[in-house]
Amino acid sequence: MLGIGVIGYGYWGPNLVRNFSQARGAQVVAVCDQREERRALVEKLYPAVTTYTDVDAMLANPQVHAVAIATPVSSHFPLAMRALEAGKHVFVEKPFAATVAEGEQMVAEARRRNLTLMVDHTFIYTSAVRKIKELVDQGSLGDLYYYDSVRVNLGLFQSDVSVLWDLAVHDLSIMDFLIGRSPQMVAATGMAHVPGRPENMAYLTCFFDHNLIAHFHVNWLAPVKIRQTLIGGSEKMIVYDDMEMSEKVKVYDKGIIVSHEEDEIYQRHVGYRTGDMWAPRLDNIEALKIEAEHFVECIQHGQTPLSSGEAGLRVVRILEAASRSMANHGQPVAI
Amino acid sequence: MLGIGVIGYGYWGPNLVRNFSQARGAQVVAVCDQREERRALVEKLYPAVTTYTDVDAMLANPQVHAVAIATPVSSHFPLAMRALEAGKHVFVEKPFAATVAEGEQMVAEARRRNLTLMVDHTFIYTSAVRKIKELVDQGSLGDLYYYDSVRVNLGLFQSDVSVLWDLAVHDLSIMDFLIGRSPQMVAATGMAHVPGRPENMAYLTCFFDHNLIAHFHVNWLAPVKIRQTLIGGSEKMIVYDDMEMSEKVKVYDKGIIVSHEEDEIYQRHVGYRTGDMWAPRLDNIEALKIEAEHFVECIQHGQTPLSSGEAGLRVVRILEAASRSMANHGQPVAI
Amino acid sequence: MLGIGVIGYGYWGPNLVRNFSQARGAQVVAVCDQREERRALVEKLYPAVTTYTDVDAMLANPQVHAVAIATPVSSHFPLAMRALEAGKHVFVEKPFAATVAEGEQMVAEARRRNLTLMVDHTFIYTSAVRKIKELVDQGSLGDLYYYDSVRVNLGLFQSDVSVLWDLAVHDLSIMDFLIGRSPQMVAATGMAHVPGRPENMAYLTCFFDHNLIAHFHVNWLAPVKIRQTLIGGSEKMIVYDDMEMSEKVKVYDKGIIVSHEEDEIYQRHVGYRTGDMWAPRLDNIEALKIEAEHFVECIQHGQTPLSSGEAGLRVVRILEAASRSMANHGQPVAI
Amino acid sequence: MLGIGVIGYGYWGPNLVRNFSQARGAQVVAVCDQREERRALVEKLYPAVTTYTDVDAMLANPQVHAVAIATPVSSHFPLAMRALEAGKHVFVEKPFAATVAEGEQMVAEARRRNLTLMVDHTFIYTSAVRKIKELVDQGSLGDLYYYDSVRVNLGLFQSDVSVLWDLAVHDLSIMDFLIGRSPQMVAATGMAHVPGRPENMAYLTCFFDHNLIAHFHVNWLAPVKIRQTLIGGSEKMIVYDDMEMSEKVKVYDKGIIVSHEEDEIYQRHVGYRTGDMWAPRLDNIEALKIEAEHFVECIQHGQTPLSSGEAGLRVVRILEAASRSMANHGQPVAI
Repeated sequence: MLGIGVIGYGYWGPNLVRNFSQARGAQVVAVCDQREERRALVEKLYPAVTTYTDVDAMLANPQVHAVAIATPVSSHFPLAMRALEAGKHVFVEKPFAATVAEGEQMVAEARRRNLTLMVDHTFIYTSAVRKIKELVDQGSLGDLYYYDSVRVNLGLFQSDVSVLWDLAVHDLSIMDFLIGRSPQMVAATGMAHVPGRPENMAYLTCFFDHNLIAHFHVNWLAPVKIRQTLIGGSEKMIVYDDMEMSEKVKVYDKGIIVSHEEDEIYQRHVGYRTGDMWAPRLDNIEALKIEAEHFVECIQHGQTPLSSGEAGLRVVRILEAASRSMANHGQPVAI
Repeated sequence: MLGIGVIGYGYWGPNLVRNFSQARGAQVVAVCDQREERRALVEKLYPAVTTYTDVDAMLANPQVHAVAIATPVSSHFPLAMRALEAGKHVFVEKPFAATVAEGEQMVAEARRRNLTLMVDHTFIYTSAVRKIKELVDQGSLGDLYYYDSVRVNLGLFQSDVSVLWDLAVHDLSIMDFLIGRSPQMVAATGMAHVPGRPENMAYLTCFFDHNLIAHFHVNWLAPVKIRQTLIGGSEKMIVYDDMEMSEKVKVYDKGIIVSHEEDEIYQRHVGYRTGDMWAPRLDNIEALKIEAEHFVECIQHGQTPLSSGEAGLRVVRILEAASRSMANHGQPVAI
Repeated sequence: MLGIGVIGYGYWGPNLVRNFSQARGAQVVAVCDQREERRALVEKLYPAVTTYTDVDAMLANPQVHAVAIATPVSSHFPLAMRALEAGKHVFVEKPFAATVAEGEQMVAEARRRNLTLMVDHTFIYTSAVRKIKELVDQGSLGDLYYYDSVRVNLGLFQSDVSVLWDLAVHDLSIMDFLIGRSPQMVAATGMAHVPGRPENMAYLTCFFDHNLIAHFHVNWLAPVKIRQTLIGGSEKMIVYDDMEMSEKVKVYDKGIIVSHEEDEIYQRHVGYRTGDMWAPRLDNIEALKIEAEHFVECIQHGQTPLSSGEAGLRVVRILEAASRSMANHGQPVAI
Repeated sequence: MLGIGVIGYGYWGPNLVRNFSQARGAQVVAVCDQREERRALVEKLYPAVTTYTDVDAMLANPQVHAVAIATPVSSHFPLAMRALEAGKHVFVEKPFAATVAEGEQMVAEARRRNLTLMVDHTFIYTSAVRKIKELVDQGSLGDLYYYDSVRVNLGLFQSDVSVLWDLAVHDLSIMDFLIGRSPQMVAATGMAHVPGRPENMAYLTCFFDHNLIAHFHVNWLAPVKIRQTLIGGSEKMIVYDDMEMSEKVKVYDKGIIVSHEEDEIYQRHVGYRTGDMWAPRLDNIEALKIEAEHFVECIQHGQTPLSSGEAGLRVVRILEAASRSMANHGQPVAI
């Protein structure tokens, strides 16, 4: 039985404790939080769990084999490093790290110590994204043309990070999983409407080789909640709408037909193809439950997680470059 | 009675002939098209209209007081200049001109000759956009924060111009009308998926002073048709969805509250405000009918049209800068 | 070339003239309307068509081989009978007749004279309904359980007939076509909210053998426009939403599983089955064009139309029984 | 502090325990369930609560001042009567009772003993329904014309009661609350598609005086989930869609204008009026929390609950009459 210690019992920590408690092969043995009232809550709901104020004290507990970190991004690096140095496997909230440099050290440290390092890219464990991954991997979409996502709503203005690090991180993690390639260049624009605060809306373009392009629109100040992704391929196109109660994934048998005989004025003809739409049935398993058990299995069998530290780092690489581009009104930044 | 001559009876020309025929104070007296079968169609439907193969012959007709040009964008400049030089008022399809230089000459020539020059920015005459304009002008939205539009569908790939010139031109003309200010800088990205063809999808950011930002997403290769604009202000926010049968315009009494007392760690608090939503009743008058009569009235009373040549030129200015930025992966371009 | 005479050039007549003019093998040769301004309109748009004030004069024209009747329902019977007696094939608007007795005479007269008699059940020629018919006939839905339709909006209050005869007639004609069976009993309720006017909202249940049930909700006084039909079968279920721009027909692989082993307390278990949803591609051909050509072909080849007089009569049979039930607060009426 | 005992810890019981635990002025002191594993669950989550197998034992506990009954409908009567006889206030799940006769005895017994008797009509405590009630009571809708609701989905087939008692009970309770009048007659139709099981789909019409009509469509065998109510009035009309994430209540300023001058052919003219749509902001308070505190306050202050035993009885009266009508294919039944 793998013993889990959770650091941070704020907004997301309770979900981690609940899911790791129910995960096959694992049990939550410790929770660390500096706030007394948060520890009291743990003690009431989970009397068998030991609570800690001090991270090092928790790491000294030999029953803790793995650590889940659910604290603000600025603390991911020091906490993850301390846990790895104490020989613990590490599960860390997204964004994986505050900088590429930090993320690289975390990945290197885990590799050196042969420990499992995983980032909580929850969305890639949802039934919707797993189904899309299946379709992409089967080649159903043909050549990938574009990935376009919108994630906007009236949301909490963060004071430490821009909306890119708060919202686009979800979509970048999904894109990284689905596409399996990294962009070569990014260009981002955005705006801060509250003086002294980071950008509350942003637009990010990622350029890949082979004419693949991705775009992300994120906004904390929108009157309606939109969670919509379009994925265009040469054979099929997908609309993934997370606000739909059912039919979150729709597959369109639509596209263009490029005639390869060039006509007298040297132009290719571009025609249309429209066909059926198909919404595959999706299961109802909670993503975090699948993810928690995946972490446990990766540790047990020495496998690399789907959302490995490297995946977390790839996303941070894009975010860091995007932030630089955004500070320069869209000036492209190579990755 | 103002005599109108229409040049080009292809896709849009028939709409112009029909609407100018019914416009108060005007009548269509001439149509010019080089294709015999198109002229035959005019002759059958409008026996009283004289048809021409040659533009100059039509311009020599003293009954033609004004000319409406519905030809490909590359011919707008030479045709409009010839018409102006012949002393005719001019109504020209969008995009107004193929380049800023051409547009500037057209505007100068009309001014010099004291002739009315109008661009067919049809959308600004729709009941939805007129209602939004009313709300913006009343100050209902407060300070403008952003303008965000999406116009995507599976559409005709143009061979001569990119999707920016074909689709974004609509949204830029709406934005120009609603906001009444011009951007200082643009950044655009896009991609061409058919070799030898212009970009079929594009993302354009416009930066204005006072932290106003606008963004346009256009795509000819989307599986679904989306026509949605979000307009964010400090007091109210609007969703304008042209695919809605009724309730195209929704006004949300939502926003953020920025507390101006700074707390001990020098941060402003950002809170939320949510209120009612309101969808104003819109009339059903055809936009092109209103626009045609507006052209006639402007000529009769020497007024400047809402969609003047200057308005057309402002939009071309953005398109030209955007094309340059797009060719450089988002490199910002000042206007 | 089949010569068509159209009686009634009001709301629907122009659509008939336009479609029969373009139908292969037919041409409109005559139009009859008592109103001078309607005749003038015909003469302007269709100079080759002869106009008549008097029906008998038109029927005396030997170039008129078939007659299309687009007048109020009360005149369908006398006009159709006169046309049949004059040896003309007849195409008549829905509802087919004002009473079952009238409809029976019309059908008998056409049969006796071996003339084609067809009712304008336009919806059964739409691509959506033809696709559903294909699925039903293939047995894709399994045993049919129910047919449920809603057709409501803020609509024109008729003064001569209730909302059943005005709106439910559409859905009854679709159901008659799709199901191919007639109900054995009906029960209807409704209400008139304007004194002296017929019912402006109504609910109609049709009982068939084999536990099939159908229900129709029609309303002229609804704040929103709804056109939605659910069709439930043992294997699959369909949602047909005519307000959807695309994806009007959705096929759900959903249903119940009834376990046939009865348990100790003599109950069958009822479980669920959920699967994919599929929206077949629909073509864009105008229904009235298909219908007009079908009428011509049926006359040429002596075939029975899909929407034959008998089909029109079956729908009138339901409407007449429903009206009686509605007058008695839902008292069931056998058919 | 009012001590609450909950009978039945199945599907709904846990919600009652949770909400009464958090309600101001109350605490859950006892839970009774015959199933050991359900009691064990209570003991784990609520160590301070005493669990019982036997209802009478629980009723003998002097700390239990009021009882909440969340058991199948057939046991509501015996359990409620035993509780009232033991001097306890009673909160009972809907449907209030299995028959009108039972319900009448329950109401009489509570009145005789001056005890609070309340039925769990949860929906009337939601923010959406409370807002509609406010509009109706202000007279905003004008004269009420109709109430039309649809509640369909792929749902659990009950073996003891028809879909009317399972689903329509929700809408009847909402209608009873909003309209404040009782129907004089009902007519219902329905069908059972699983042999030996009660009707799984049903249509119910309620006739009121003053030309008010209500209709309910309920179905356990629908491919999609619909929760939509239309309320028509002479001044305004409402669409209440419980599947909308936001904007559940939309108020339409639409209607008809009946001209009271009668024309020469003795007809009133009926015209249209269309205006704005307005979606009032709704609060987010959980309905069951409001309801639980309302029960406590009614006991404390001797007030009649909004969802009193009489309200529960009124709904059962409709359900009983509807069941009789449904067994006779829509034969109307007076109430």
